[in-house]
Amino acid sequence: MVKANENYLKLPGSYLFSTIGKKVREFGEANPEAKIIRLGIGDVTQPLAPSIISALHSAVDEMGVKESFRGYAPDLGYEFLRNAIAENDYRARGCDISADEIFVSDGAKCDCSNIQEIFSLDNKIAVCDPVYPVYVDSNVMAGRTGSYDAKTETWSDVIYMPCTADNGFAPEIPEKTPDLIYLCFPNNPTGATIKKAQLQEWVDYANKVGAIILYDAAYEAYISESDVPHSIYECEGARTCAIELRSFSKNAGFTGVRLGFTVIPKELKAGDVALHPLWARRHGTKYNGAPYIIQRAGEAVYSPEGKEQLKAQVAYYMNNAKYIYEGLKSAGYTVSGGVNAPYIWLKTPGKMTSWEFFDFLLEKVNVVGTPGSGFGPSGEGYFRLTAFGTYENTVEAVDRIKRANI
Amino acid sequence: MVKANENYLKLPGSYLFSTIGKKVREFGEANPEAKIIRLGIGDVTQPLAPSIISALHSAVDEMGVKESFRGYAPDLGYEFLRNAIAENDYRARGCDISADEIFVSDGAKCDCSNIQEIFSLDNKIAVCDPVYPVYVDSNVMAGRTGSYDAKTETWSDVIYMPCTADNGFAPEIPEKTPDLIYLCFPNNPTGATIKKAQLQEWVDYANKVGAIILYDAAYEAYISESDVPHSIYECEGARTCAIELRSFSKNAGFTGVRLGFTVIPKELKAGDVALHPLWARRHGTKYNGAPYIIQRAGEAVYSPEGKEQLKAQVAYYMNNAKYIYEGLKSAGYTVSGGVNAPYIWLKTPGKMTSWEFFDFLLEKVNVVGTPGSGFGPSGEGYFRLTAFGTYENTVEAVDRIKRANI
Repeated sequence: MVKANENYLKLPGSYLFSTIGKKVREFGEANPEAKIIRLGIGDVTQPLAPSIISALHSAVDEMGVKESFRGYAPDLGYEFLRNAIAENDYRARGCDISADEIFVSDGAKCDCSNIQEIFSLDNKIAVCDPVYPVYVDSNVMAGRTGSYDAKTETWSDVIYMPCTADNGFAPEIPEKTPDLIYLCFPNNPTGATIKKAQLQEWVDYANKVGAIILYDAAYEAYISESDVPHSIYECEGARTCAIELRSFSKNAGFTGVRLGFTVIPKELKAGDVALHPLWARRHGTKYNGAPYIIQRAGEAVYSPEGKEQLKAQVAYYMNNAKYIYEGLKSAGYTVSGGVNAPYIWLKTPGKMTSWEFFDFLLEKVNVVGTPGSGFGPSGEGYFRLTAFGTYENTVEAVDRIKRANI
Repeated sequence: MVKANENYLKLPGSYLFSTIGKKVREFGEANPEAKIIRLGIGDVTQPLAPSIISALHSAVDEMGVKESFRGYAPDLGYEFLRNAIAENDYRARGCDISADEIFVSDGAKCDCSNIQEIFSLDNKIAVCDPVYPVYVDSNVMAGRTGSYDAKTETWSDVIYMPCTADNGFAPEIPEKTPDLIYLCFPNNPTGATIKKAQLQEWVDYANKVGAIILYDAAYEAYISESDVPHSIYECEGARTCAIELRSFSKNAGFTGVRLGFTVIPKELKAGDVALHPLWARRHGTKYNGAPYIIQRAGEAVYSPEGKEQLKAQVAYYMNNAKYIYEGLKSAGYTVSGGVNAPYIWLKTPGKMTSWEFFDFLLEKVNVVGTPGSGFGPSGEGYFRLTAFGTYENTVEAVDRIKRANI
């Protein structure tokens, strides 16, 4: 008699962004006249840059002609893209990462959630709190997190590293020793970053205790300050303790295009087992490559025109971030993030919980944000706004919140 | 101390098609003058149909304009595509499947390998032998298959259903009762099909014993005979025992475009647990949707022009299949498949093993096929050729094999 994976049944409620989507849809249906502004999900709004559009059209044309048609892509990605990544994202920053250590995929969400598969089920994970829910949920589904305590909203076998105003939203080395450490900088949801010297401490710690850092650098394009690392491989010793996950979603607006990559250095091991061949085996067995035309779009991100156009796109969103940050600050809110990241993290006013503030903003001013508590217990009392809206909507949303005058 | 997933280490050798790729690459490098013809991997060679190219260009243009730009796709796929699938692949064939039972993905390989995740680790799987390696390998990686016996090339906890000339390459109901039954018709690798009445027996059996059939119908577009089912939902009772997996790779040449889908009827349960919400949760948590432009290409597959153009494309490949089938038969080979499927399954000549014949063809006539034994022990002594080459290469390959005169 067939049985379901009972770990799935342990998951409390639905995926955060699905819940938000449902709430907003229901409110919109009940209030068709409301002009809802979405600053919740970290989804981009600017069209793809001209150089990317042009690369897509060329690749589509190639697929329509026998001589240039491409079938299955190489398991790990096309050389042209892996070379462009290695050169621009790594060697240009002095990081020793070669093209054959890069695994191209259809996005960082898939990689973040799949990467745990190559590790033992009895490995213990550590996550920041608040945290991007996918890290925890994918481990719950695999059966690695123990039992859920609905009161504390925590899992018995997960090590939580609180990130609050008290520690500048930077996690501290945990008391219990983890095997897998999820870090994300610039951080989603708090928008916080850590300096290179702080990241070096994590690398040294991981090497010392034999842990692996799963480093999510999806937002690195938003870094504006000079001593904030763009890659964990800027730190000495990271090749023996770190996997880096990257996305094209936020630096190039690929949320609906789907492209990302994971870096696994060849000398990275779990005990005696090299991890590069394990991830290669997973790609070869359970994945069939990102579409050719999308990989060509990824290549265009690194062209001189692409770089220039995307710099302007990132600047557009960061101008939104500045508007939100300064607007809410001037209105008396306690805000952080927004300087090296497209996320603004604010304290909810008065004694409001995160979800109360979510409902308030949705119902009173028709603005959608993300409740901080959806990212973990230490997110309670906080709220995330994203800078990925249009400038006009961002201004309108901030002005509405200010007018609401809570 | 971090540990690797030891199940990965149990996998014997590398993924079949990676091994073949490596052998061919090495032979090509050592023999640069050899004109190698690849009829191994089931990869298509014809360019995308004009209606698909046109849909891709339009969608790319939409992505370049603010007003029509699309970010994250709906978790489970765009309505326009799910509606087209439900209408054309199901309702038009009298199958009761609705759009919201369809989950769009980036390909059947991912779905085939991921679907096992929503089931308990102690569920027992049954597979045809020979079989598409992904079904077994993905279960090995999850830890569901027990121990490997290198001598028999079988896993202790897998139920094998031999498909040989003796039973017309059709599996028989196994003696031990499985929980999950992988079936693929038209079959990869044998090219065999079963009639609707035979498939109905499987559906009745699964309902009786409380098993679930994972039905891979990736090759349904190649069915030419009338009493061969295109979907398992043509059988009565399939909604309570079957998940169907479909691909756009072979009917529309999307191997490098990446699009597929999975059907989970709402009443399908494992014990008390409905499976539709579990797979929805997996999509929501671990996946971020197929690219918008690719979903528009999928929609074009169902347009009147698309249908006509793809019918011609399938006919092109089936003409190759006929050439291989008849050519090898006339040369004295024992061949099957090729009538409702793009695969020809042949007995290796004399006492040659599958890999010996692989090496022979590669070295003597520079033709690449797939060793039957790579698909399972009952595939030993067989060999697969695909009809997905160009007509010119197919003719040349068959003529070379005939001239080799083994």
